[in-house]
Amino acid sequence: MFVRHHSEIVPQKIEEGKGISIQWLIDDKVGAPNFALRRFTLDVGGYTPYHIHDWEHEVYVLSGKGSLVDEKGTEHPLREGDVAFVDPSLQHQFKNIGQEPFIFLCIVPL
Amino acid sequence: MFVRHHSEIVPQKIEEGKGISIQWLIDDKVGAPNFALRRFTLDVGGYTPYHIHDWEHEVYVLSGKGSLVDEKGTEHPLREGDVAFVDPSLQHQFKNIGQEPFIFLCIVPL
Repeated sequence: MFVRHHSEIVPQKIEEGKGISIQWLIDDKVGAPNFALRRFTLDVGGYTPYHIHDWEHEVYVLSGKGSLVDEKGTEHPLREGDVAFVDPSLQHQFKNIGQEPFIFLCIVPL
Repeated sequence: MFVRHHSEIVPQKIEEGKGISIQWLIDDKVGAPNFALRRFTLDVGGYTPYHIHDWEHEVYVLSGKGSLVDEKGTEHPLREGDVAFVDPSLQHQFKNIGQEPFIFLCIVPL
């Protein structure tokens, strides 16, 4: 069991997409057996790649304004308190469409 | 894939403990294959039972002031942006120790 503030976890830059950093808040390195909790920050103008993989995303938006692009290219706006589920094997992309960092939690299976 | 605001999900009262409601934000009913994302609200003076189970918790604190009681009875304070991991099969309890609702996300395996 542990408690720590997210600010104790060093953000890592992601080279794909633009302006993305990730904090691995809880993962297998600290004993998580099933899933990992990550915190993403997309800078103003930032975006993830429009990509696909065979695992799901469960997302909770903490702050900022973003959008989730679905497999048809449709953009779904995202704001604080929004919840998003991305099924496995669906093309998707997250974008910052606001004027401040867009920050969200994203949980994935291990 | 879906997006919805947490306020669209009706909170359910939990009879155990005191002053607890839960929103199942993402679970198997909406297609999640591996883990469920829940949002807990503990009213002022509220607490969960001091209990044990064989699955883990991954927690992110959204607002309010709380504490996590560990298996030894030690209380760990919790505030916005704190992350908590509770290993499977460890006794634990969450309490609201502030003067406003204590709200956190808690992810569990399905």
